[in-house]
Amino acid sequence: QTAVQIYGSFDGGLRQTTNVDAAGNSRLSMGSTGTYNSNRIGFKGVEDLGGGMNGHFTLETGFNTGTGALNNATNQLFERTAAVGLGFGANSLDLGRQYTVAFKTIAAYDPFSYKYPGIALAVPATAGTRYNNDIQYTGTFGPVTARAEYALGEVAGDRTAGSNRAIGVNYANGPLALGGAYTQRFGDAPTDFRTKHWTVGGAYKFGPARLAVGYADQKAETAAGIDTTNKWYWVGLNYAISPAVEITPAFYRQKQGGGTGASGAATSLEGKKDLYMLSVTYAFSKRTNFYALIDQSRLDNALRVGGNAAANQDRQRDIAVGINHLF
Amino acid sequence: QTAVQIYGSFDGGLRQTTNVDAAGNSRLSMGSTGTYNSNRIGFKGVEDLGGGMNGHFTLETGFNTGTGALNNATNQLFERTAAVGLGFGANSLDLGRQYTVAFKTIAAYDPFSYKYPGIALAVPATAGTRYNNDIQYTGTFGPVTARAEYALGEVAGDRTAGSNRAIGVNYANGPLALGGAYTQRFGDAPTDFRTKHWTVGGAYKFGPARLAVGYADQKAETAAGIDTTNKWYWVGLNYAISPAVEITPAFYRQKQGGGTGASGAATSLEGKKDLYMLSVTYAFSKRTNFYALIDQSRLDNALRVGGNAAANQDRQRDIAVGINHLF
Amino acid sequence: QTAVQIYGSFDGGLRQTTNVDAAGNSRLSMGSTGTYNSNRIGFKGVEDLGGGMNGHFTLETGFNTGTGALNNATNQLFERTAAVGLGFGANSLDLGRQYTVAFKTIAAYDPFSYKYPGIALAVPATAGTRYNNDIQYTGTFGPVTARAEYALGEVAGDRTAGSNRAIGVNYANGPLALGGAYTQRFGDAPTDFRTKHWTVGGAYKFGPARLAVGYADQKAETAAGIDTTNKWYWVGLNYAISPAVEITPAFYRQKQGGGTGASGAATSLEGKKDLYMLSVTYAFSKRTNFYALIDQSRLDNALRVGGNAAANQDRQRDIAVGINHLF
Repeated sequence: QTAVQIYGSFDGGLRQTTNVDAAGNSRLSMGSTGTYNSNRIGFKGVEDLGGGMNGHFTLETGFNTGTGALNNATNQLFERTAAVGLGFGANSLDLGRQYTVAFKTIAAYDPFSYKYPGIALAVPATAGTRYNNDIQYTGTFGPVTARAEYALGEVAGDRTAGSNRAIGVNYANGPLALGGAYTQRFGDAPTDFRTKHWTVGGAYKFGPARLAVGYADQKAETAAGIDTTNKWYWVGLNYAISPAVEITPAFYRQKQGGGTGASGAATSLEGKKDLYMLSVTYAFSKRTNFYALIDQSRLDNALRVGGNAAANQDRQRDIAVGINHLF
Repeated sequence: QTAVQIYGSFDGGLRQTTNVDAAGNSRLSMGSTGTYNSNRIGFKGVEDLGGGMNGHFTLETGFNTGTGALNNATNQLFERTAAVGLGFGANSLDLGRQYTVAFKTIAAYDPFSYKYPGIALAVPATAGTRYNNDIQYTGTFGPVTARAEYALGEVAGDRTAGSNRAIGVNYANGPLALGGAYTQRFGDAPTDFRTKHWTVGGAYKFGPARLAVGYADQKAETAAGIDTTNKWYWVGLNYAISPAVEITPAFYRQKQGGGTGASGAATSLEGKKDLYMLSVTYAFSKRTNFYALIDQSRLDNALRVGGNAAANQDRQRDIAVGINHLF
Repeated sequence: QTAVQIYGSFDGGLRQTTNVDAAGNSRLSMGSTGTYNSNRIGFKGVEDLGGGMNGHFTLETGFNTGTGALNNATNQLFERTAAVGLGFGANSLDLGRQYTVAFKTIAAYDPFSYKYPGIALAVPATAGTRYNNDIQYTGTFGPVTARAEYALGEVAGDRTAGSNRAIGVNYANGPLALGGAYTQRFGDAPTDFRTKHWTVGGAYKFGPARLAVGYADQKAETAAGIDTTNKWYWVGLNYAISPAVEITPAFYRQKQGGGTGASGAATSLEGKKDLYMLSVTYAFSKRTNFYALIDQSRLDNALRVGGNAAANQDRQRDIAVGINHLF
């Protein structure tokens, strides 16, 4: 038997969010699957098979700080990752539930590298964070990492329905990181509605700072023959004031279009979200830090809290403080 | 990465309970989340941050011996504990789902130290065993341990609704242990009904024996403007016949009042429960023991098996034997 | 505290199955709790208690490769095994959810030793793979292993309802392995319908080959006063072409009888299934292998895909390839 490694991340803190309902109330909360970093406990292992080959696996569970609950209500014990694979030198072939190609590609140019996962916008929903039944290839060629995936839909008689396909590439050389990915997703049979998503971005390090910018674009066919479009832009700066203290201002914008009504009508999907974030972290150690975040959203039309109704909130602010402990 | 410690307790045995239904039938069962000691498997770790400071966490799952099922049907994977915290010398601040202050306080003067958790009465239901979204402080000052907690209700616009607050103190010096705690709990908005609970007790060791006595008192506002009152008294003696064998006789009484009807009426909450327990344990090692329990309850009115109806059972007896294995 | 061992098996692959619906469609799938070997992650430990005695436990979780989901929707976190026991020399007494006596007995003469668990037929459904609330004795006497179990029904006032009882014996000496088991199961109160199941079989090793043959027979009372009968026959040959490569051809037949209608009628349970399997495995190491399977079923009447309706499929073929990684 092997030495299985147990690892994880546990985030505990408080978050105050304004305008959470039509009355404009605020809510103070602790319950979360991780405000700064997603909570997880995982089991992983690698077996050297000789000749540059290895067998490896990861099983990773997400949970809620405030309640200890699993991070989903659909019985997915290892919802965060359940994948097994073979490595061949700098290549790997992995099967199971795992992060998408688009997610891994964007990681290189998200200002927060996916911290504040429930707040920041860098992984647009429809490109997906993870796929079920995913066959994924990763190959590293010098500064280039290339990825391709095909996630089965498992529909009888229709290999397109429910499937997801993507390719992505990252380039990392010294201070420079670039990346781009293209994803196609297909809805349920028999219509197999198609969503197309692409993203591109980069980051550059200079001294104690790192600047990251990104863009993502998506066009989704929807049930009533309507396309919904989304564009996301983001830019952020990590600045290390000292070895222990880092501040990160960042800005994200989402513009959504589509729907059948005029802008602001209940049937319109048109909307805009502008998100301003400012984070400070203090590292007690490499594994434990303190974080503080303030963010402000401005929301238009369909992207307001609660949607198009005029009474709904068009602004929201979070203040969050807590600690994150890696194990 | 750290060395995560895996630990737990696994209880396997048989329990025969009389008068489990209106016909007076008995039931023989194995399925239980632990008859002598609650079943659990947990993961915990501590990281030394220097200067007397540490980061620490616990994730603990409960399960059923007979079926392997999770100890709850509400998806709470780490229902027993999910808490992360920082230690500062003899002080600790912990966030998450965790044991309540009242529970930890009473542990010092429960005859069974919470063994036989489904049978003994020392942790009255409404003071709670654990809270979600709990912020808890623990400080040790020589023989005194002080605790305070505030568990968020997370209700928008109402920080009282659903919240829980408690303070407690324990004193331990040589053979003597004393403790007391006060708890306030608040129900759902908009009524925020309040429950007040306090407890006090102590234990004293003399030679191979330890005597423990305790009292708890609770007054709960209920929906129809009715207060329900409960008082619990208990006393027990642990006696080590030999290093491996211990017997524990104990007595618990619960007196309940309230409701709108006369005593014995369906709408009355008045009732009484007297519980006599006698346990014997034999330690194969520090980690594995054999246990045997016989207990007898006398139940009046609303506390009868099934409640006030005259046909319901006013006595119940358990005989339980099994092994408990710690890992 | 003890050193808890973490162990498991993770299977990732693809399976193409024909005739999965009335239209005769095929389905390509990855999602599975393990095609070649059941997916699991487990925690186990043994404590030496001295004098030939030990305490031991196992907690084992099953999961789906494609989704990371738990292997059941009924909250059974340790559905695969949750058992604690004491060992006394070559004897063991175990309590909890665990493999049945019949299952353990047949393991000695199933050609695949329970590989391809969702495809091969060697563990007939009603004798059960595991029981809840099971008390099981195992004793080894030279070449003989004897087992007996009683799984509680936990029904008040009726110790027969829902209970399961079985005895089994295995003989293993040099190249020869033999076994047989008898099981009685009882349904819900008040009828306590009884199922009787027995099985016998053996295996013989000669050089690089092992031949395994088995038989199982079952008669089940059903709700309408109807007996359903089943007979299973199987034979298979494992042949090691080289130390790393093994091929296994096997044949399984199930014959079912019962129901109230004539053969082929909707109310008839009469049916037959013939299953031809051919598996090849290549071992990268002792822990990681590649597998490929082709199998073909011929199905008659009530055992057709979808049952008795004439339109339903009477043939089905699987092609499966993948890797299995033990940890």
